Amino acid sequence: MKALVYKQVGQVSLEERPTPKLASPTDAIVKLTKTTICGTDLHIRKGDVSTCAPGRVLGHEGVGIVDAVGSSVTRFAAGDRVLISCISACAACEYCRRGMHSHCTTGGWLLGNAIDGTQAEYVRIPHADCSLYAVPRGVDEASLVTLSDIFPTGLECGVLNGRVQPGGTVAIVGAGPVGLAALVTARFYSPATVIVIDTDPGRLEVASEMGADEVIDSSSMSTDVLVKDVRDLTDGKGCDTVIECVGVPATFELCQKLLAPGGVLANVGVHGTKVDLFMDELWAKNITITTRLVDTVTTPMLLKMVQSGQLEPGQLITHKFRFQDVERAYETFSAAQEHGALKVLIEM
Amino acid sequence: MKALVYKQVGQVSLEERPTPKLASPTDAIVKLTKTTICGTDLHIRKGDVSTCAPGRVLGHEGVGIVDAVGSSVTRFAAGDRVLISCISACAACEYCRRGMHSHCTTGGWLLGNAIDGTQAEYVRIPHADCSLYAVPRGVDEASLVTLSDIFPTGLECGVLNGRVQPGGTVAIVGAGPVGLAALVTARFYSPATVIVIDTDPGRLEVASEMGADEVIDSSSMSTDVLVKDVRDLTDGKGCDTVIECVGVPATFELCQKLLAPGGVLANVGVHGTKVDLFMDELWAKNITITTRLVDTVTTPMLLKMVQSGQLEPGQLITHKFRFQDVERAYETFSAAQEHGALKVLIEM
Repeated sequence: MKALVYKQVGQVSLEERPTPKLASPTDAIVKLTKTTICGTDLHIRKGDVSTCAPGRVLGHEGVGIVDAVGSSVTRFAAGDRVLISCISACAACEYCRRGMHSHCTTGGWLLGNAIDGTQAEYVRIPHADCSLYAVPRGVDEASLVTLSDIFPTGLECGVLNGRVQPGGTVAIVGAGPVGLAALVTARFYSPATVIVIDTDPGRLEVASEMGADEVIDSSSMSTDVLVKDVRDLTDGKGCDTVIECVGVPATFELCQKLLAPGGVLANVGVHGTKVDLFMDELWAKNITITTRLVDTVTTPMLLKMVQSGQLEPGQLITHKFRFQDVERAYETFSAAQEHGALKVLIEM
Repeated sequence: MKALVYKQVGQVSLEERPTPKLASPTDAIVKLTKTTICGTDLHIRKGDVSTCAPGRVLGHEGVGIVDAVGSSVTRFAAGDRVLISCISACAACEYCRRGMHSHCTTGGWLLGNAIDGTQAEYVRIPHADCSLYAVPRGVDEASLVTLSDIFPTGLECGVLNGRVQPGGTVAIVGAGPVGLAALVTARFYSPATVIVIDTDPGRLEVASEMGADEVIDSSSMSTDVLVKDVRDLTDGKGCDTVIECVGVPATFELCQKLLAPGGVLANVGVHGTKVDLFMDELWAKNITITTRLVDTVTTPMLLKMVQSGQLEPGQLITHKFRFQDVERAYETFSAAQEHGALKVLIEM
């Protein structure tokens, strides 16, 4: 089969690879119909992700058709149309029972990281019963690639960890796909004001279209002015929820300054270095900081929101490529600002 | 009246001051019978607390007898024996309604900070109805000075924010009065293991007596060895709850390394500088970090625990002084390790 392989730092390549086989009774083999590229894949290509070695087939998002299942799989059979979760989970270990499927002792983020992933014609899915979801009737299958990772990440790591509530004030720092997913899913909980901050006017325009009440272009603004602007929009208090969707020290530090007393800073960004935490200012401010690798425990809820028409998962897809052009898709996605790219759909 | 006054950085002095008068209908005047000194008073004396100016009567802990009440006070009358909360709260503003009395818009930590405090013969208590508690019958009044601040701080900022639960693993870094209060109140929630870490063998001995399952003297131990020791005690995982009771970068950074996946780092310490936050290690670990200025919302619960005999509030009191010797009490408390001092009771 054809598969997109991480060759070495800076290089990915479409190559011929053996088709995966069932390795455990709980496995399924899925024939991909659609996949996509995540910002995390770009981190891997840069050499930032130590758990992913050269030679790995990348990709942890996709939809497809079950090709074969192991003898223990009870919820799926060959021919089923399925959404693949970025997190594989046994559903039975200590962490899964706590809803922390991302830390499953025999699962977690395996696909395109510890084992071969979904940017291929076929993929082996461990713990298939808890790692696949049936595609609901009447739903546009292609658009569901955004439910493998991006939408549950924005919702769980950003909105739920950030305790977005009716009447609350929310700042989202970073309007990439996951920041926009946080914006869209924050609306489920009826906050009073959502402020989106980014340096890319194009992405801010998209944020406005997707329901941001206020957008702030921080590209040529001092932190002090930005903090003052956000305070002015929030009755002088700062925000009840601040969602960090970038993953660099400057934005994490900005987020701390945007917090209201009692607020929550929900980190979503993937960080490569330590950051400064201003405990001298925060120790008495009754704030909370959270981190989370997405558990994908909200995927069933998100599928219901899609079915009921309350979530349009395709709205983040800006570009489409054929799988044979996946290397070009990487170039487009890695120059996202230039191309106005959010998620790129790759059709097998 | 006599009062202990913060004169300038490094100096406090027992002086003659005018007796306070009712200034608002919601005020009470309380004649102190007992007071004590907090670590925060030492921070003020060092000049670390910018909100407290020279000339201030210090102290935010104490018990006494109501001397006079304003016309709006309904819950107390002259002659009532009362516990004074370190937090004054209106009970009606946006923050009080959320249980964040520490951020009351017309209250908060006022005593011995923004207004004159309890290390005096008399003190004016704003918002008396929500800032005083009747001393329950049959309770040793003197021991209740530890319920003004230390016990609710250990419980709220440490144990409750840290989500201590039955079967959970807890590390407490710093075995001063507030760390010990966290230890004692953590036991209310039946954790499986409480590990107390400090550099003072004397305090660790006290921690063992007060119910620590394990104590670790970190005075001559590398961080790596300490982290390994804690992992060995917690099934290789680290702790579900880590309570920071020191307030310096080294201990805050240690606490991050003691966290299990899904764990909570509950900060109690008063910090004077920023700290390093290892987001490169924590971003995917599903952890939570909390800060809190005590809200004293648990004071009624703590009083019930005292009444029922489940909490011995006097166990933290190691030294007693007469008020005329309060300056000497400061010297003893500020050389706590040398004197084996925890809380010093000051009797009027």
